[in-house]
Amino acid sequence: MALKDEITEWFKGLQDSICAALEAADGKARFREDKWDRKLGGGGRSRVISDGAVLEKGGVMFSAVHGDLPLFMKKEVGSEAQFYATGVSIVIHPQSPMVPIIHMNVRYFEMTDGTCWFGGGIDLTPHYVSEEDARMFHAAIKNTCDRFHPSYYPDFKKWADDYFFLEHRNETRGIGGIFFDRLSATAGFTIADRWNFVKAVGETFAPVYTALMQKNRALPFGDEEKKWQLLRRGRYVEFNLVYDKGTRFGLETGGRTESILVSLPATAGWLYDHKPSAREATTLSYLKKGISWV
Amino acid sequence: MALKDEITEWFKGLQDSICAALEAADGKARFREDKWDRKLGGGGRSRVISDGAVLEKGGVMFSAVHGDLPLFMKKEVGSEAQFYATGVSIVIHPQSPMVPIIHMNVRYFEMTDGTCWFGGGIDLTPHYVSEEDARMFHAAIKNTCDRFHPSYYPDFKKWADDYFFLEHRNETRGIGGIFFDRLSATAGFTIADRWNFVKAVGETFAPVYTALMQKNRALPFGDEEKKWQLLRRGRYVEFNLVYDKGTRFGLETGGRTESILVSLPATAGWLYDHKPSAREATTLSYLKKGISWV
Repeated sequence: MALKDEITEWFKGLQDSICAALEAADGKARFREDKWDRKLGGGGRSRVISDGAVLEKGGVMFSAVHGDLPLFMKKEVGSEAQFYATGVSIVIHPQSPMVPIIHMNVRYFEMTDGTCWFGGGIDLTPHYVSEEDARMFHAAIKNTCDRFHPSYYPDFKKWADDYFFLEHRNETRGIGGIFFDRLSATAGFTIADRWNFVKAVGETFAPVYTALMQKNRALPFGDEEKKWQLLRRGRYVEFNLVYDKGTRFGLETGGRTESILVSLPATAGWLYDHKPSAREATTLSYLKKGISWV
Repeated sequence: MALKDEITEWFKGLQDSICAALEAADGKARFREDKWDRKLGGGGRSRVISDGAVLEKGGVMFSAVHGDLPLFMKKEVGSEAQFYATGVSIVIHPQSPMVPIIHMNVRYFEMTDGTCWFGGGIDLTPHYVSEEDARMFHAAIKNTCDRFHPSYYPDFKKWADDYFFLEHRNETRGIGGIFFDRLSATAGFTIADRWNFVKAVGETFAPVYTALMQKNRALPFGDEEKKWQLLRRGRYVEFNLVYDKGTRFGLETGGRTESILVSLPATAGWLYDHKPSAREATTLSYLKKGISWV
């Protein structure tokens, strides 16, 4: 089987297993599926969960698309090659402000001229930062990375700090995680090495996030916490619409809007010049680049 | 008095008179003012109203800034000139889904090399489109435009249709209005002619919007209408963060974030693949370019 077909099948299976794990952990809601076709080639399986016991709104999206390169990439690459891209993208917004928002993406891109690479990442956005949860999350990711190369965690953790950053707020989106792009076969790494790593990242998602769901789902909260959650979700919206390359690329190249913007929360809010409480200020103090969690 | 000083003083007065008219029409809330300085030159007076009887969140912002051109404009203009820019920007989000959202901007820009122009616009975003209100709104704007030049309304109405458009939704933001930019002295127009027109646009805002507030504030609504309002506000957020040039320019050039993003609503929402009711579908059918309202 060609590598791209192997990857595509594996990503479909990853979508299946993550949806099953999230449904089991939520205990109430089920994913609905929409299959869609891309006019210019390929399509996807969008799976969306809403109104769960723990998960308010979440998407676990698979796609595999192909065709001519978008115009701006043609210019960048200087090639008339066809592309093939497949991946799984996840964003989960929980009901409770005590449960963090999570995002994961794993993707593969190749061109008919032989160029190919992987990209992806996983990052956590707690409404209130818990040091214990942050350490657990980063330790799990570091553990995955370290199985493949000692530079992966430090390099990709820094990349996440730089990528998931709201310049106009001088804030990171959350406590980061890892981010990587254009991982190809280079000195010391075969494409099979890269693929094994990307699979391991995909497999890290479900156990880590379901643990965070179960650990925090029963914590008490009130109106103050719900209001803060709305503001943090507002920042999430700002990041995705202003900075996120995947979102902007998708919207600009005529991707399926409902699948792309499933990453936005069911509700969000903006207050003019909100003055954080002491507890909120503590969370803000963690939204900085370069914090070492492990 | 230099033209730029005359314009600056007049814009301050416009901010005063619009705030007074909105407070009188609201009857409950008052604007708070924050004065701010821009490190690189100039500053502004941000006025924000919240939790009113009619107005949930609104900003009437004045600024006058100057200094070196931002890098990308230097390249565009090919000049080392200094710039001066002043304007009034307004976005109002009402409490009731039966009262429309409104936006207005009037601005003046000049460079030390002698180049100068006006820009601006006013557009209405009803949560539910009322044909009567839409005709009233467009008639008032056309009336203002027609006092200055017969081509202003048709040209600037089309410009608004094209500008206030969400490509990824294939929807206009609302029912449009007028938009114009780089209005300078050209054949048939002196800079004084342009300035008189821009003043008249500024003066059109308060009577038109307070009339819409009073006409619609007592209309009944329930949960269905509040839910739809959240979704329409979500679209407003999408437009401002993805497309609006003023917002993106402001964020990218280190403007005051709280003043720029006061345009975002107190709350907004996103539902995956929402199926509009018959009444919602009627509103969507009006969110098209090229509708003739007068």
